[in-house]
Amino acid sequence: MALASDPDALVPAARDGDRRALARVITLVEKGGPEGRRALALAFPHTGRAHVVGITGAPGAGKSTLTDRLIRRARGEGTEVAVLAVDPSSPYTGGAILGDRIRMQEHIADRGVYIRSMASRGHLGGLSAATPRAVAVLDAAGFPLLLVETVGVGQAEVEIADRTDTTVVVVNPGWGDTIQAAKAGLLEVGDVFVVNKADRPGVEATVRDLEQMLDMGGHRPWRPPVLTTEATADAGIDELWAALVAHHRHLVDSGELERRRAVRLEDELRAAITVTVEQRTMRSAAGDAYRQAVADVVARRVDPWTAAARLLGE
Amino acid sequence: MALASDPDALVPAARDGDRRALARVITLVEKGGPEGRRALALAFPHTGRAHVVGITGAPGAGKSTLTDRLIRRARGEGTEVAVLAVDPSSPYTGGAILGDRIRMQEHIADRGVYIRSMASRGHLGGLSAATPRAVAVLDAAGFPLLLVETVGVGQAEVEIADRTDTTVVVVNPGWGDTIQAAKAGLLEVGDVFVVNKADRPGVEATVRDLEQMLDMGGHRPWRPPVLTTEATADAGIDELWAALVAHHRHLVDSGELERRRAVRLEDELRAAITVTVEQRTMRSAAGDAYRQAVADVVARRVDPWTAAARLLGE
Repeated sequence: MALASDPDALVPAARDGDRRALARVITLVEKGGPEGRRALALAFPHTGRAHVVGITGAPGAGKSTLTDRLIRRARGEGTEVAVLAVDPSSPYTGGAILGDRIRMQEHIADRGVYIRSMASRGHLGGLSAATPRAVAVLDAAGFPLLLVETVGVGQAEVEIADRTDTTVVVVNPGWGDTIQAAKAGLLEVGDVFVVNKADRPGVEATVRDLEQMLDMGGHRPWRPPVLTTEATADAGIDELWAALVAHHRHLVDSGELERRRAVRLEDELRAAITVTVEQRTMRSAAGDAYRQAVADVVARRVDPWTAAARLLGE
Repeated sequence: MALASDPDALVPAARDGDRRALARVITLVEKGGPEGRRALALAFPHTGRAHVVGITGAPGAGKSTLTDRLIRRARGEGTEVAVLAVDPSSPYTGGAILGDRIRMQEHIADRGVYIRSMASRGHLGGLSAATPRAVAVLDAAGFPLLLVETVGVGQAEVEIADRTDTTVVVVNPGWGDTIQAAKAGLLEVGDVFVVNKADRPGVEATVRDLEQMLDMGGHRPWRPPVLTTEATADAGIDELWAALVAHHRHLVDSGELERRRAVRLEDELRAAITVTVEQRTMRSAAGDAYRQAVADVVARRVDPWTAAARLLGE
């Protein structure tokens, strides 16, 4: 095996600060396969230290600019930061059409910042199946802060909350984003709400609407704050930073951090079991019995569930 | 077993036009379980006759009003029509927050129209897992036209295209909906594009943008038409109806209808196999070995994939 793709050489190098090795390890875990699994197995024991922050909201809400400002804020404190930008790409063409990443290029010369784009590859819900694996690698590489930015709408935002410690929901002034966030279930999953583009009219009404909707949810141990930012003017970033720090402290002190992570890891184990079993079943079912079952279903002689049960000998 | 929930009595009654029996059968297949599976097995051989049309687009695009006008158009020709309205509901609260259904109440007295709302129940992608089963029941009940309306954004629209014969993508004048549709991959899956609210400014530009984006996709056997409607004024509905009829004829004549349905049915068989195997695995893995694997993963002694492989004896 060439050194360039040997996980046993690459993972320690990535943990020692070799950024090219880090990039290769992420590529390996993105691809899956035996090398990716080996890389993940090597990285996994070193995970669990980073504060993983999801930044989500509708397209155009200003998530990339906010992420950019948070990077600067983190660097101002000497904190190293990694960014995973998950792009929704067409499941049919495979092509991502967004160019927001360009804005972040100024950080490229800074070794304390690592930025990686990932395509969502048509995985339902928008978050690539590879995203939690890439988060694990960056966590193991020692970044104390991970920002996971999803461009997308709907269920993707709900899914991201299961993968991050702190979820930041970004909306703009006006009713549109707010009602869309409510419909997508974001009110329940957001830990910090940001009304960005606070120079636009309607910001007070939007803050009030969000506060009222959050109050309807009843008492919770952490009442999500509603902040205003004008990311392009660097306004409100200190308050957002303070909210992220406060939420992290709340998670640690309340034991919620450990609880959330345990739930997430059990989910990942179950997903791994399911995929492993499915692959095995499809291999063993690839023969004549499976082809016959498909033919029976397509001819509508038997429904899919009955055919599945028969195929599996139930 | 009480007659009220006996699939062997209910399914034939539903096929004979008993609407209360039909509602009960859909409830059974929504719930799943042995009675739901029996109902589906009874209904399945009678499926494959309906033209299944998906109507999708961003919230507020006017999908419900368009659906309402299409119902009237169908009824004007004496065609019976069933509508499945899949609501995105919060996976955390379970509550749907939309009230568009009220608009359709005027059709309730018409026995040739059947309208059913389904919650998406937090299934990733927005389409309830029960939706294809409800489609099968309505198809078996003899409705020649099924309209499946999804309110939601993003991957849900892509998913619906795998479940319907004809996908109608509804946008409004302006750049917002169009770029969002492009991001969600809708340009590739739409069979008919509708710019609704054509009384608003910018409709020509939106049509032109869509046409150009569709042309970029290269030659396809069916070039999706881009239509304009003003559903509230009943304008453009005849043209939309004609496009639905033309697309159905294209699907039949080209053999694409059979091909799409065969792919869809094989997908459903594979999904049924996966769920059946997963349930069985979880039952057998519910013991000490599974609890130990969870503990090892949560303590980060072993990664989820390695733990899954060990648990499954690989």
